Amino acid sequence: MADLFWPGDDRAGDHFTSESFLWAMVDVEADWLGRPLEVPDHLEQIGAEAEGGGNPVIALVKLLREQDEDVHRGLTSQDVVDSALMRMAEAAVESLRQDLHSVIARLAALAAEHRDTPMVARTLTQHAVPTTFGFRVAAWLTAVLDAEELLADLDFPDQVGGAAGTRAAIVELGRELPPGIPRWHTTRAPVTRLGDALVGCTDACARIANDVLTMSRPEIGELAEGSGGGSSTMPNKANPVLSVLVRRAALTTPQLGATLHLAAAQQVDDRADGGWHAEWATLRDLVRRTLVAASQTDELLAGLEVDTGRMAATLTAAGDAVLAEQRSMAQAAGHDPAPTYLGDALTYVDAVVARAHATLEEGQ
Amino acid sequence: MADLFWPGDDRAGDHFTSESFLWAMVDVEADWLGRPLEVPDHLEQIGAEAEGGGNPVIALVKLLREQDEDVHRGLTSQDVVDSALMRMAEAAVESLRQDLHSVIARLAALAAEHRDTPMVARTLTQHAVPTTFGFRVAAWLTAVLDAEELLADLDFPDQVGGAAGTRAAIVELGRELPPGIPRWHTTRAPVTRLGDALVGCTDACARIANDVLTMSRPEIGELAEGSGGGSSTMPNKANPVLSVLVRRAALTTPQLGATLHLAAAQQVDDRADGGWHAEWATLRDLVRRTLVAASQTDELLAGLEVDTGRMAATLTAAGDAVLAEQRSMAQAAGHDPAPTYLGDALTYVDAVVARAHATLEEGQ
Amino acid sequence: MADLFWPGDDRAGDHFTSESFLWAMVDVEADWLGRPLEVPDHLEQIGAEAEGGGNPVIALVKLLREQDEDVHRGLTSQDVVDSALMRMAEAAVESLRQDLHSVIARLAALAAEHRDTPMVARTLTQHAVPTTFGFRVAAWLTAVLDAEELLADLDFPDQVGGAAGTRAAIVELGRELPPGIPRWHTTRAPVTRLGDALVGCTDACARIANDVLTMSRPEIGELAEGSGGGSSTMPNKANPVLSVLVRRAALTTPQLGATLHLAAAQQVDDRADGGWHAEWATLRDLVRRTLVAASQTDELLAGLEVDTGRMAATLTAAGDAVLAEQRSMAQAAGHDPAPTYLGDALTYVDAVVARAHATLEEGQ
Amino acid sequence: MADLFWPGDDRAGDHFTSESFLWAMVDVEADWLGRPLEVPDHLEQIGAEAEGGGNPVIALVKLLREQDEDVHRGLTSQDVVDSALMRMAEAAVESLRQDLHSVIARLAALAAEHRDTPMVARTLTQHAVPTTFGFRVAAWLTAVLDAEELLADLDFPDQVGGAAGTRAAIVELGRELPPGIPRWHTTRAPVTRLGDALVGCTDACARIANDVLTMSRPEIGELAEGSGGGSSTMPNKANPVLSVLVRRAALTTPQLGATLHLAAAQQVDDRADGGWHAEWATLRDLVRRTLVAASQTDELLAGLEVDTGRMAATLTAAGDAVLAEQRSMAQAAGHDPAPTYLGDALTYVDAVVARAHATLEEGQ
Repeated sequence: MADLFWPGDDRAGDHFTSESFLWAMVDVEADWLGRPLEVPDHLEQIGAEAEGGGNPVIALVKLLREQDEDVHRGLTSQDVVDSALMRMAEAAVESLRQDLHSVIARLAALAAEHRDTPMVARTLTQHAVPTTFGFRVAAWLTAVLDAEELLADLDFPDQVGGAAGTRAAIVELGRELPPGIPRWHTTRAPVTRLGDALVGCTDACARIANDVLTMSRPEIGELAEGSGGGSSTMPNKANPVLSVLVRRAALTTPQLGATLHLAAAQQVDDRADGGWHAEWATLRDLVRRTLVAASQTDELLAGLEVDTGRMAATLTAAGDAVLAEQRSMAQAAGHDPAPTYLGDALTYVDAVVARAHATLEEGQ
Repeated sequence: MADLFWPGDDRAGDHFTSESFLWAMVDVEADWLGRPLEVPDHLEQIGAEAEGGGNPVIALVKLLREQDEDVHRGLTSQDVVDSALMRMAEAAVESLRQDLHSVIARLAALAAEHRDTPMVARTLTQHAVPTTFGFRVAAWLTAVLDAEELLADLDFPDQVGGAAGTRAAIVELGRELPPGIPRWHTTRAPVTRLGDALVGCTDACARIANDVLTMSRPEIGELAEGSGGGSSTMPNKANPVLSVLVRRAALTTPQLGATLHLAAAQQVDDRADGGWHAEWATLRDLVRRTLVAASQTDELLAGLEVDTGRMAATLTAAGDAVLAEQRSMAQAAGHDPAPTYLGDALTYVDAVVARAHATLEEGQ
Repeated sequence: MADLFWPGDDRAGDHFTSESFLWAMVDVEADWLGRPLEVPDHLEQIGAEAEGGGNPVIALVKLLREQDEDVHRGLTSQDVVDSALMRMAEAAVESLRQDLHSVIARLAALAAEHRDTPMVARTLTQHAVPTTFGFRVAAWLTAVLDAEELLADLDFPDQVGGAAGTRAAIVELGRELPPGIPRWHTTRAPVTRLGDALVGCTDACARIANDVLTMSRPEIGELAEGSGGGSSTMPNKANPVLSVLVRRAALTTPQLGATLHLAAAQQVDDRADGGWHAEWATLRDLVRRTLVAASQTDELLAGLEVDTGRMAATLTAAGDAVLAEQRSMAQAAGHDPAPTYLGDALTYVDAVVARAHATLEEGQ
Repeated sequence: MADLFWPGDDRAGDHFTSESFLWAMVDVEADWLGRPLEVPDHLEQIGAEAEGGGNPVIALVKLLREQDEDVHRGLTSQDVVDSALMRMAEAAVESLRQDLHSVIARLAALAAEHRDTPMVARTLTQHAVPTTFGFRVAAWLTAVLDAEELLADLDFPDQVGGAAGTRAAIVELGRELPPGIPRWHTTRAPVTRLGDALVGCTDACARIANDVLTMSRPEIGELAEGSGGGSSTMPNKANPVLSVLVRRAALTTPQLGATLHLAAAQQVDDRADGGWHAEWATLRDLVRRTLVAASQTDELLAGLEVDTGRMAATLTAAGDAVLAEQRSMAQAAGHDPAPTYLGDALTYVDAVVARAHATLEEGQ
């Protein structure tokens, strides 16, 4: 359903919706049962009863047992919720990585195209030295590649522990488990690592959006969002809306990641009295916002307009001031300033583009 | 719709749903227009188009102009969104305060009933000195009264500023505004104060839940949630589910409050490029979770079972150790220990109960 | 001692240093004792022993009893720590409000001076409609006034409760307390309200810094920090360093405020097992960073350079585009566009300046 | 110097002190220069001047050039600060991992010793099914091993980029760099990954502390801190102070980690206008608190007292209720309940202990 509070939310599709959560839980139960189960068409009822048990599993199991009375034998609620979350997360991260691969491909092409496009570098808002737009894009690309790397390293373990992690019921039932089935009831690294990696993605996307927002200011005018968003009262105004919305996400996700850590640090006994429950909606919001931000970044790059003339003009206008460092270095080295002052920036661009291509090839 | 990720979410009713947001925005437009407007039955369409303008107002206005072409004249998107958020907030806080008044009444009665019920005080998890359960409840009550006070002080100003806060369009249209109509485009204290007050509520509710969780441990057994929640695998297990869910909320809300401050601190120009947009969903989640937590706390107290026998037995078993301080004080004062060691705890209980009654009378 | 990790830290002076904490604790003990005490010159020893009791009071009391054996009778560690924190906070907030009053006076003068200085308004980074620089400054000023108001409303209660809040030892000692002496052991609103108000200050300061950072970009050039900071390698570069450092603070303080709420929400029993202890350093950092940010904002404004010519030129260059709204409004109203398009911006400036003067007069 | 606001702070030794920061920066400059440099004995002066440039490097370089005028040629402030932070971080993480290895060794021994010690499992505060204390310790150990793994994966890259990352000055000076020298000016994954890994450590330590705090409540009494801390007013009271202080840390570190992500997401241009500066003190606090928490956890475990009699008694007293699940499973399976109900808990203990030994052997 449309979320008017988070424009663009529909880009996250069915990932981590209540329906998907229900499907994933049924999937976990069916896998455990070894027989297919139908998803009960009683989402509202399960939702209403979820509070009674503190989670939606009891209400779900009651309904599933109408189909097959052996459902859930040996499991506990946490097994089902945690496994379902991880399965949803795996699907979401796969989708996210596809979007990031598209972002990476666009950035690699953009960096290569503008490898030599002269531009002024800015530090602490002020003109610094010459650079190229491709070098800047290489920094964006590095951030995205670093983020993607953490995602690629994630695991999404199922959880099979039973009431207190000991699998007592499973053994009592005489059921044998294949080796390697994980259990991580009160040790939440799979959740916090996932959360941290997702926040890393919005960090990287925001790093791009910030530059687009700055460089598309009319007084700078070096970049523009292709279409731009309108105003409700000012005709012809074109706002860098995608960048605004990406930046929005990154202001909220670090605190969601922190909540996952806080929840992990509240684990106690053989199941936490609140810390576990705080994870679900937090993870949902974090996943969906990251998906939206990555998709918006991809669209933003697809339509990004680069005004190389304006870049050149700004650099020219900056004039001698941005070569003051060069003059002092040349003097120190005892020679005339070199004709350009780009250091090994172009080599760096090439290396980052090569890293991008390697990532994309692995991802195929 | 049921939110399986946040059991109990339905307690927040229609507050801050997408539908309510839509209604509130139409309400704002109709008030400004001076004529009633029908709420367009196009939530999905507005949601889908919201991304294009960065907020849902442009799509809404387009639909409303099919009813009346004078809609929105002189306003900007932010006027409509901010005013709608504040109107929703006002209704939610009114509802929240009703729940808190119920909590306050229950706590006042509980404190009075157990004013003299002996119990052991615990500090840093260990037995300290004697106290009464009424004294403990008075501490819970103080926390809730403090929280309610901040809510009672809140304002929920409309926002009428036009494109950049200057009201240029309004003046150009020849429209006169009554004095005192607020504008606060880039100064977000109305939002951050609201957020902080809401977090204060979950702090207070969690303070109660923490004690119920501790004191309903079977080894302590001094309190119990009336009904308790079941287990998906262990028959007869009764979990303090309401307390768990209240505690859950309080692990997440402080970070939501922080996000509202971060967003405020990102204001720039005459409208922020992301900071503004980060507020809406954050405020929605904060409001709804606080409503749920307050309602759960109310139900928790309604069913709370107090085992005064167990309290007395624990205090007796604690024995001389909890009177060691008294002995050293009596020795220092040069007299025999007094028969009780409760200080002015009972006076304090009476004072807090009186404060509660004053608050409840004001609230009528 | 110099804090290389937080340039400008020395602006916070002695507020909330370990020495000040020690002095404040001795002050609390002396007031309770009714006789003066000398501050023991054993900070390192007290620090080293603080871990043993979980707080510095036990080690301190041991030393103070060498001066007077009646020290601390009837109190508990928390009484001393909480009262000392509140006394330090009261002094710090007084100092902070003085800085804010200076900021308010500067902003009021700046708003009045530039009441009519034409400038382009910007929303979502893009040119919107005409405004004046005075109107912008009035927004800054409103944010600071709102922040100051919350500070003015704060209380800084001492804490006298004894081991578990019941004052049992005090009564056993036969000591009578004047009415109204507060106790708030496990209800932490005095701490969270303080924290929230401090975060509100850095929000307001950052709102100014963000605009200075944007408007002092060379391509915009409408504002400049008077002196600016240098570069370690680029001669002549002038960075808006004060704005950068103010903005830095506001990225960190909301999370510190959140930590105070989380700590409050962890209260349990008659003293929390960690929540209480998490407050002290968090509050220290929050107070000092706010003091530094306010002082830097004051200096920033003292040296702020306003380029009214550049403002006018930008507005002129923006041309017809920023009057598109006016034309559509004039057309809707059936008349020619008015010669200016500033709405009631100037009236607003006057009102905010008047509010500032009222605040400053109260503060005298 | 003693930090009275964070008892136990001295456990972090010289890691990330202002002096260490100064030493590390001089170390970076000396390595770059290729000649040794003396650390200037002017910390206060550098601290006082740090604000002028926004960081301490300009003041430091001015002093170092009195020793050797070639200092800093080709570098920028960020190179020096970032490299120094990473070198300090590398030393701190090495020290942290040593403490964690000690924790791991203790936990492995404890898990092995109590592999078969019967205890009641608790979920959501209530008795669930039988378990062993060794199984619980295996959960603690898993959390610590997971945390240690993330630390072991970290990189601590130097930073050599020059004014805007292009190394223009270095090339102008004719200096050749060995391949592989990193630059990551505006892509902050090295910082955020470090931060996330540190938060993971306090999560793991708190997970242990929470259990000790719960299980050392007098009504449970299954664990006790060896010595315990005293009270300022209650003779004989023994508080689980180390656990309290560990838990304290974990309430603050997630928000520090979030601040590092927020700072990363504020990167813009070729150096951020505040985001970069917000990292330093945040990282300092995060590192030191994690070091303190790990060291306290180690000491806590060294002195931990396990009351196996009390564990057995609690399990016995829990009686039939904790075997209700077993009975329903046995009935479902059509056989009598097995004599024990521990599932494969002991196998799990063995596996985790083996993982611990493998980690310790690698670490040697």
